[in-house]
Amino acid sequence: MSDFYELAEIADNCLLNNKTVDEKVISELKQITTDNGYIGMAQINPVAGDIEYNTKKIAKYIKFANDINLECLVFPELSLMGYPIEDTIDRHPVIVEENIKWLKGLAKLSKNTVVLVGFVEPRNCSKGKKYFNSVAVLQKGQIQGIIRKSLLPTYSEFNDYRYIEPSEVSGCQSPDLLSTGEYSEQVSKLYNGYGISICEDCWNDGEFFERKLYSANPLEDLYKEKPRVFINCSASPTRTKKEQLKHNMLSFVSAKYKTPFIYVNQVGAIDNISFDGTSRMYDSEGKLIARAKSFEEQLLIVNPYKKIGKIYPLTKGLEKSLTEQKVFTLEYESDLERTYKTIIQGIRDYFNKCGLKRAVLGLSGGLDSTVCAVLLADALGKENVFGVSMPSHITSQESKSDAEKLANNLGINFAEAPIKDMIETTTNCLNSLFAKVEKRWGKYYDRETGTFTNKPNNSYPSFTPDNIQARSRAMFLWGISNEFASCIPIATSDKSELYMGYATINGDMSGGFAPIADVPKTKLFAFARWLNSNRKEKNAIPEAIILKKPGAELAIDPKTGKPLIAEDALMPYEFLDEIIWRIENKNESYKDFLGIEFVYEKHNKVSKEQKTEWLNKFYRRMSTALYKWSILPPSVIVEARSINKYDYHQPITSSRINYKGVSEEYINEGLK
Amino acid sequence: MSDFYELAEIADNCLLNNKTVDEKVISELKQITTDNGYIGMAQINPVAGDIEYNTKKIAKYIKFANDINLECLVFPELSLMGYPIEDTIDRHPVIVEENIKWLKGLAKLSKNTVVLVGFVEPRNCSKGKKYFNSVAVLQKGQIQGIIRKSLLPTYSEFNDYRYIEPSEVSGCQSPDLLSTGEYSEQVSKLYNGYGISICEDCWNDGEFFERKLYSANPLEDLYKEKPRVFINCSASPTRTKKEQLKHNMLSFVSAKYKTPFIYVNQVGAIDNISFDGTSRMYDSEGKLIARAKSFEEQLLIVNPYKKIGKIYPLTKGLEKSLTEQKVFTLEYESDLERTYKTIIQGIRDYFNKCGLKRAVLGLSGGLDSTVCAVLLADALGKENVFGVSMPSHITSQESKSDAEKLANNLGINFAEAPIKDMIETTTNCLNSLFAKVEKRWGKYYDRETGTFTNKPNNSYPSFTPDNIQARSRAMFLWGISNEFASCIPIATSDKSELYMGYATINGDMSGGFAPIADVPKTKLFAFARWLNSNRKEKNAIPEAIILKKPGAELAIDPKTGKPLIAEDALMPYEFLDEIIWRIENKNESYKDFLGIEFVYEKHNKVSKEQKTEWLNKFYRRMSTALYKWSILPPSVIVEARSINKYDYHQPITSSRINYKGVSEEYINEGLK
Repeated sequence: MSDFYELAEIADNCLLNNKTVDEKVISELKQITTDNGYIGMAQINPVAGDIEYNTKKIAKYIKFANDINLECLVFPELSLMGYPIEDTIDRHPVIVEENIKWLKGLAKLSKNTVVLVGFVEPRNCSKGKKYFNSVAVLQKGQIQGIIRKSLLPTYSEFNDYRYIEPSEVSGCQSPDLLSTGEYSEQVSKLYNGYGISICEDCWNDGEFFERKLYSANPLEDLYKEKPRVFINCSASPTRTKKEQLKHNMLSFVSAKYKTPFIYVNQVGAIDNISFDGTSRMYDSEGKLIARAKSFEEQLLIVNPYKKIGKIYPLTKGLEKSLTEQKVFTLEYESDLERTYKTIIQGIRDYFNKCGLKRAVLGLSGGLDSTVCAVLLADALGKENVFGVSMPSHITSQESKSDAEKLANNLGINFAEAPIKDMIETTTNCLNSLFAKVEKRWGKYYDRETGTFTNKPNNSYPSFTPDNIQARSRAMFLWGISNEFASCIPIATSDKSELYMGYATINGDMSGGFAPIADVPKTKLFAFARWLNSNRKEKNAIPEAIILKKPGAELAIDPKTGKPLIAEDALMPYEFLDEIIWRIENKNESYKDFLGIEFVYEKHNKVSKEQKTEWLNKFYRRMSTALYKWSILPPSVIVEARSINKYDYHQPITSSRINYKGVSEEYINEGLK
Repeated sequence: MSDFYELAEIADNCLLNNKTVDEKVISELKQITTDNGYIGMAQINPVAGDIEYNTKKIAKYIKFANDINLECLVFPELSLMGYPIEDTIDRHPVIVEENIKWLKGLAKLSKNTVVLVGFVEPRNCSKGKKYFNSVAVLQKGQIQGIIRKSLLPTYSEFNDYRYIEPSEVSGCQSPDLLSTGEYSEQVSKLYNGYGISICEDCWNDGEFFERKLYSANPLEDLYKEKPRVFINCSASPTRTKKEQLKHNMLSFVSAKYKTPFIYVNQVGAIDNISFDGTSRMYDSEGKLIARAKSFEEQLLIVNPYKKIGKIYPLTKGLEKSLTEQKVFTLEYESDLERTYKTIIQGIRDYFNKCGLKRAVLGLSGGLDSTVCAVLLADALGKENVFGVSMPSHITSQESKSDAEKLANNLGINFAEAPIKDMIETTTNCLNSLFAKVEKRWGKYYDRETGTFTNKPNNSYPSFTPDNIQARSRAMFLWGISNEFASCIPIATSDKSELYMGYATINGDMSGGFAPIADVPKTKLFAFARWLNSNRKEKNAIPEAIILKKPGAELAIDPKTGKPLIAEDALMPYEFLDEIIWRIENKNESYKDFLGIEFVYEKHNKVSKEQKTEWLNKFYRRMSTALYKWSILPPSVIVEARSINKYDYHQPITSSRINYKGVSEEYINEGLK
């Protein structure tokens, strides 16, 4: 079938680039696809709420499907609106009316090919939520049926149940019910023999999952009607571990029900969430027959009955096995290509969809800003990235030259802008202001007396000088963003440091976008090496940057006389990242950690006191970092779990949680 | 019964202030309350996740209830954990184990008095979510039963279904089922004749509500068992219109079921959400018999069978009628006391629960910072507030003296810190940096050619000089926060301006807390007058501040040579606030607005072109303000709907939504 896929790719490229598909290509394809069973999986990248843009994109594929007589053409979940659209539709119901109007317009385009399109269906009834998450069946110029989502993911990045009513019924409903909110059991659940479901609807097999999240099982309901093929319209984001789970699950259910399975997934990023595409088809034995590209729009044509398909290579990392993920490891290699593509897509789509073109960032010569610069250059084009080195009196000569070397290697724009004057003026201004404030307010809080005093009562150094530097730099970057059109500054904070609140408000954690906010530091080291080996221009990142111990170069360590090393202020990153990983992936706690040997402990001697001190510091710092998480700019969710505020909610005022737990004796004593 | 409530108040005050209740008071109360039917409604203010603190507070009330032989003592929903706790329990399940341990400790304290305590119940089974939102029945040293929430609000500020499994069963379950996730129908749904439900469980009466959000109705289930009294453990926030709805609904259901109704609500703020307390009791005819204080902790003792209760006055505004709210009005008077108490509680609890004591804010002599200063002084104590006047070359003499006058009137700390040097240095640094950037990058984007150019192609002025001022000020305030313990800066942005993105990132919209982010500008004017009339110190706000036209004093209007007025840059606030109100409260859209006569139009001539221009500007500005909403500091939700990111979710990348809609012809043409 290689000829077929060569032709299909030619056509697909034309469609992607808004070119007319050559008549000859169409007629050759048509000779093949006019046969029964050819189904197009249209893995598109919609823009949230831009119904006109999304619909026109869909229309293009429908016309092509008509041209080549496909049996069926499948789009992802909510393809007219983009997924997720969230509360927007509740506040602005006009856009739901619009999506119905455009849907009816699309219906008119349909001919013999069955088209499955996701849309928001209003429920004009007085029960339940106001909307269904639905798929319309279009054929012969009309809406022929509707399928509504039953299982509503409401956890992590998903909030379906905020605005969607779960359908009580699986399978295809009569088009007469459109927008009524009513159900009917009269009509066959299948359309043209297809057992159609929406995303989560196929993720609830009690034999496959250890935990069955919902009591309904739409696939089981559909199976009873003996479908020729299962079709699932999906919008399923990429996260560590997800692909392997998805593959195993889809393979399992297609084999279990002895029915081929077609899964069409959204691609592209909407805000913090990256969808990886990789739409696919399994045969009735659960064997993978076709798989679309990852992180790219594509129309992939398959035939489930004849087992015709093509398997495009999976982005490395997507296939990462579950067993590998059961223990924390510093071996990130297998996930780095996926990490790269996820972030690149996240940056690119955020910029494109917001109408932004350029980014400016501070280049410190440190790892975080370096990795950000590489990713931005690749996502936006090197000419659209400006790196600014903003040295202070603490910045070493090496840092400056490393930053410049990096910019040259990448070919991005570069300027140096010392912040000496800013520091001087700000420091002078602040000192004179502090003197005024000090007349009325003590600087330090004395817990014992509950009063403020000007006598230092702890050894914490003042962070004021550090923060002046970080904020002066952000002032420069936001200034450029103000003055130069379509440009935003980049927040370069990484996940490990955000967990520790080791980031300056209105400083390095400020920006229009935060590319690596969900990448832990130890992974960043591996990532930098990976970038050096795997990008077209090798070794863009100077080795010195990777070898250097991370530190913000904002303060001098009084002990060494050299810039403070972050690990001295925090704890070894290897140890820190393992705590984070264990909390996020295994829900382990303080007490568990005391009984576990950390990877770091395997090759470093750590006393019990030291370990306890690090753990205490971790929870103390995390508790006061919650506020910073709440004001972090949009970022890309990369790992299995994150602290992105749209992925994880924790009240800021929960800072007094005791994560260590107490003994029964302590409780009995306390309640006496 | 006045003697009884005098005694009860004396006891309550002792409990609140951690003093021992006088033996004589106890014995006198006991003589009355030893009779059947005396029930304590313990309206407490928990700290999210601080189980030890919450439990000890609860224990104090249990001991007192035992002392005076109450029949029953009721606490709010999730009282051990505080509501909401959100995803925290999923990530840190150790705190759920802890809440069970403390619950068992509390059980041991229980004697004859039935105690109802809200807690998180783990579900150690392989189906559904991992937790129930439950209430434990404690009596005679043991857990006697458990009630689980069935209806899970998942909209606006509520996210119950993210972490909670809805109970399939209403009423009281056997304690043997604790933590199993299993149900049993064997046991009576009532405990001691009480029909117990949790919050939303009583908010789903199909006869009362136009829209029935859920199919189950736990009250109806309980009613079948003939309860002596309904008891609802609640955590229900205050919002415009809410109290009237709540009163009508509770009165309706108690009359409908001819059963007295006891409703115990949480008080206090958790992050952005303010709970108003006002726990109450209705008799079996739906008549209000007792109501606790608003916005204060209180133990109110009632007797539903003998209709004994006391009605504490309602905070004005809480009772605001629904009809008043059906049209937009500039008459805010009736809601101002509630607004005041909501924000005061919001500030106070945020500070207390985060361990903060002091606030610093810029005083511009404008309305926003002025109202913030008054609220902070009242919430934190005037000695804990520092107002800093930070004049620039644009700041008028009046603004400076108004700011100082305000500070003196309030008795808060005050300092002046001109930003002239900061502006000069920053401007110089930026100009030299801009020159470097300009060598590589054009400043302006030319849509036609899709390229950047240095020839200005639109008349937008540069905001760089404005933003330098706003950011210099924030730099000062964050500096004070760094240098002086337990102090955060305040973001003074109001709701109208946030809708328009009329706020500077890292400038006036930056801070540790944003007190008035949900108060529209027209309401702020009324609020300022209300503060002047209703605070103990009258007229703290200089009249000039209220009379002045709002403007950021960041730029000079080239037309007038005077500082730019905000309404000129935006549109009349009266018009703007009505758009916002209609979108949030009536879900109206662009097309509706064209057909409506706005309040502003009643007394100002507005051409159709002018109206269209304002509407276009509104949607254009709102679409690009979404990013700013996502990084706004924690604020207090005040109005019926808000743009607080934990109350309303809209993708930032949805900026291309067409809010105007299109015609069918346009669609047909576009899909050709």
